[in-house]
Amino acid sequence: MSTITILIHCKDQQGIIASITNFIHQNHGNIVYIDQYVDRTHDAFFMRLESVFENTDFSLEDFNNDFNNSLGAKFNMSVQLYPTDIKPKMAVFVSKYDHCLYDLLGRYQSGELLVEIPFIVSNHADLAPIAEKFSIPFFHIPVTKESKAKAEKEQLKLLQEHGVDFIVLARYMQIVSPLLIKEYTHKIINIHHSFLPAFPGAKPYHSAYERGVKIIGATSHYVTEELDAGPIIEQDIARVSHTHRIDDLILKGRDLEKIVFSRAIKLHTERKVMVYNNKTIIFS
Amino acid sequence: MSTITILIHCKDQQGIIASITNFIHQNHGNIVYIDQYVDRTHDAFFMRLESVFENTDFSLEDFNNDFNNSLGAKFNMSVQLYPTDIKPKMAVFVSKYDHCLYDLLGRYQSGELLVEIPFIVSNHADLAPIAEKFSIPFFHIPVTKESKAKAEKEQLKLLQEHGVDFIVLARYMQIVSPLLIKEYTHKIINIHHSFLPAFPGAKPYHSAYERGVKIIGATSHYVTEELDAGPIIEQDIARVSHTHRIDDLILKGRDLEKIVFSRAIKLHTERKVMVYNNKTIIFS
Amino acid sequence: MSTITILIHCKDQQGIIASITNFIHQNHGNIVYIDQYVDRTHDAFFMRLESVFENTDFSLEDFNNDFNNSLGAKFNMSVQLYPTDIKPKMAVFVSKYDHCLYDLLGRYQSGELLVEIPFIVSNHADLAPIAEKFSIPFFHIPVTKESKAKAEKEQLKLLQEHGVDFIVLARYMQIVSPLLIKEYTHKIINIHHSFLPAFPGAKPYHSAYERGVKIIGATSHYVTEELDAGPIIEQDIARVSHTHRIDDLILKGRDLEKIVFSRAIKLHTERKVMVYNNKTIIFS
Amino acid sequence: MSTITILIHCKDQQGIIASITNFIHQNHGNIVYIDQYVDRTHDAFFMRLESVFENTDFSLEDFNNDFNNSLGAKFNMSVQLYPTDIKPKMAVFVSKYDHCLYDLLGRYQSGELLVEIPFIVSNHADLAPIAEKFSIPFFHIPVTKESKAKAEKEQLKLLQEHGVDFIVLARYMQIVSPLLIKEYTHKIINIHHSFLPAFPGAKPYHSAYERGVKIIGATSHYVTEELDAGPIIEQDIARVSHTHRIDDLILKGRDLEKIVFSRAIKLHTERKVMVYNNKTIIFS
Repeated sequence: MSTITILIHCKDQQGIIASITNFIHQNHGNIVYIDQYVDRTHDAFFMRLESVFENTDFSLEDFNNDFNNSLGAKFNMSVQLYPTDIKPKMAVFVSKYDHCLYDLLGRYQSGELLVEIPFIVSNHADLAPIAEKFSIPFFHIPVTKESKAKAEKEQLKLLQEHGVDFIVLARYMQIVSPLLIKEYTHKIINIHHSFLPAFPGAKPYHSAYERGVKIIGATSHYVTEELDAGPIIEQDIARVSHTHRIDDLILKGRDLEKIVFSRAIKLHTERKVMVYNNKTIIFS
Repeated sequence: MSTITILIHCKDQQGIIASITNFIHQNHGNIVYIDQYVDRTHDAFFMRLESVFENTDFSLEDFNNDFNNSLGAKFNMSVQLYPTDIKPKMAVFVSKYDHCLYDLLGRYQSGELLVEIPFIVSNHADLAPIAEKFSIPFFHIPVTKESKAKAEKEQLKLLQEHGVDFIVLARYMQIVSPLLIKEYTHKIINIHHSFLPAFPGAKPYHSAYERGVKIIGATSHYVTEELDAGPIIEQDIARVSHTHRIDDLILKGRDLEKIVFSRAIKLHTERKVMVYNNKTIIFS
Repeated sequence: MSTITILIHCKDQQGIIASITNFIHQNHGNIVYIDQYVDRTHDAFFMRLESVFENTDFSLEDFNNDFNNSLGAKFNMSVQLYPTDIKPKMAVFVSKYDHCLYDLLGRYQSGELLVEIPFIVSNHADLAPIAEKFSIPFFHIPVTKESKAKAEKEQLKLLQEHGVDFIVLARYMQIVSPLLIKEYTHKIINIHHSFLPAFPGAKPYHSAYERGVKIIGATSHYVTEELDAGPIIEQDIARVSHTHRIDDLILKGRDLEKIVFSRAIKLHTERKVMVYNNKTIIFS
Repeated sequence: MSTITILIHCKDQQGIIASITNFIHQNHGNIVYIDQYVDRTHDAFFMRLESVFENTDFSLEDFNNDFNNSLGAKFNMSVQLYPTDIKPKMAVFVSKYDHCLYDLLGRYQSGELLVEIPFIVSNHADLAPIAEKFSIPFFHIPVTKESKAKAEKEQLKLLQEHGVDFIVLARYMQIVSPLLIKEYTHKIINIHHSFLPAFPGAKPYHSAYERGVKIIGATSHYVTEELDAGPIIEQDIARVSHTHRIDDLILKGRDLEKIVFSRAIKLHTERKVMVYNNKTIIFS
């Protein structure tokens, strides 16, 4: 028995839903989940399906080919297929802050995060002991202005050698270069410690304090070339008051960062996120 | 052009989704929204569809018959069809509290609530001036222990004469009798001023104060014979502290009640609620 | 028996709290509430007291003079005294949107807002019927580019004739001029339909939609000369998704606006807000 | 320089605040924080002060004696004094669930929790490796029906040998006996995985699922003899839907438990909690 998650995107057209559901039915699949969304402004159609195929000779590759050659071609669809029993490989990038890393590794250890973590990479050596505690390989690749290009090549080599599927930036305090972004488009997840688009860039808690906001936030988004402007996956907020100094905001924000980040990673690993026009569609 | 909302419920079976989407396609309908849910514990299938029929000779009655005779019979489905251009008729029951009534009528006037309000009924005369302000007929039907049975018959008569589709209890401080509940099963919406199942029955704010909770709530649910135990449609909460006295909780709770109540009514009027096993399925 | 709310601000110094509490004790006052805050960055001291004076010959004027001549002078304090039994006069400015107005007037009628509303003023005639429903004088003062200066003088005249204490802009779609701001510094409360500092200015819901945020907000603040940049009194948020179109955001935001606005007004009327460095201190 | 936190409770009387602030001023203390609360129903007065004493010969013991002999006696006060530079000793009780433990230890390691953790105790050996990872002594004290009394004596001995100030039950699946509760009254903090008073006792997520609530919660409270009925310190909630199965609720609830628990512990260690009539007063 195989369970497949299917993500489909194409221009909105009459009869798509019937055609797709029919095709799966004819291939002896039983749809156990279907959700769809139409962006009426752009006439864009998005669908997420989970289907169980009980025939023992089911081949993902054949199904993929058949689908693309028939419906895919007819409706000009982009299709992604994911077998649900294979855990994606997630690389973790960190700098010196440890709270998001502790949180991720705690969830990983508890079996809550359905990923494999082949390694942790950092531009600093500080968090190596935590990696060791959790028995995960740790690579220290320093990044300076001069070594940046070289460091990124090293990173990319590591990523490819380990067959990494996606990257999470657990408070990685470096700007990721177009090289990596191109290779991992909408596959690099960042956690930013503000309620974007408020307070992008460095020191958002300082800016929040200066402005006197009554609520702070955290935002998890896919990394794009424009800083802190990529498609937002998840956001959440916490209430603060005039009594909170910058240090209090930072402390309070840490809980937000951890939760928003882990929710975004979970959505990504469950294939519930599609990106369109620099925005996300999040299936339930 | 007709737009129809279709709610379907049956036992979960292979090929349902393909069959339904196919049927609609063959009847020249274009599905613009589809969502489905399967309760795996009870193998129960639920679906909500919105479909546009562009053929000018589309007949809701014919479609309904065809659907029931073919798929309905085959899969043993219960089906509900709602044309989206007809506003349901909503009767409002009140007692003496005016905040939920003001809120409902404000939304009604602003065009936010897609209903018709044929009348307001109350066991007290106090709120008649508000009804008058908004030019809505007001019926004062006093309820005493002795007159209760008679009063309910009067209420039922009013409801039927005006073809009322559903009832909202905007802080109506009377227990609704089985007579009305039977006639309007899952069509009477109450707002209870606590986070059910905590603090059912009378004076929940007093109980919340006594217990020293840090959060209060409001719950909107369909009325069933067991008090405050019907299917929950919507809930929300507000943070409180030791400084809040009972009066403060009541005041703070009013905003909760208004919002939770109006959200529940909106979900009901948009046909996004299905009831199963005393719980609700809420489509997005 | 007189109950007085006292707001005090000065440079932080040793012995202030003891001096103040002592002074009140010696004047036969019983402190029933005390809260204080020190901004350590600027060594600024803020205090809010509620004190009951049971002596029948208590004179607010004398107390004020005594306080200012002794402690006020010694510590270089700025002091505000408010008798709690006098309701402040609140003018309501509106344009065409009615939801905030309905909400305010509902609360006013229910006795929830402890203010007097001498009149409503608008640059459009549309909402006159609502004012009439609630029997509140309505003044239509059109504002065009040419007539703006004249209109503001008319507004100011009205405000002064009625002894208005503070102004609320209930979705008043005009920029308030420095003339009014100077006369009513930190006494004009606006409701902005975004989570400031995100999306200031016009059409924030459109911008929120474009950016694909997962949470929208509303902000109530005192009006200053810089647009949407005044001291924030209260903010709140609501969760949204990709399925929400601009109209849905507008609708969802209305509830936020109403609640955030009324909370800010309540804080202001209870004298719980002090302004310092373009930020607010909110006492509990 | 010494900084002292002072918690005071007595019957409400005229002149208390002036007397206390005066006393501290005369003892060369500078009050840097003052907050007070009066429970008007029971005429009970509560105060929290932070005061800095700059005289090098300041003696906490002398101050304590002087305070108690003068004001304490006069107003019949109960007084608690805490030097802010001494970290309280916190014992952690666990069973088999690891998420709250991971969370606590992550915060401990990051310096966020201002406590010392002398040891972790458990009725199971499962979590010993985590204790080892974080280099904290772990004691396995099995508890069976027969051994319960003996086990508790062992626990108490450990607590006393290490001079433990307070205990946290990080999902400790045993009922704590009156022996420990008496010794650590309002010093044992539990995290319960529901929005109390809804769903006390075992399996609250199962009950929440059965009832079909739209919001789940977590509650941290002081342990008293009546199960899940002690003074509530902190609560929070998360939104759920019909699509969440029991396992999903459990997973979602874990984040709630961690955050609510750590917030309650933080409030306790900052001496911001006072207990009265089985409710808490939480200072800001």
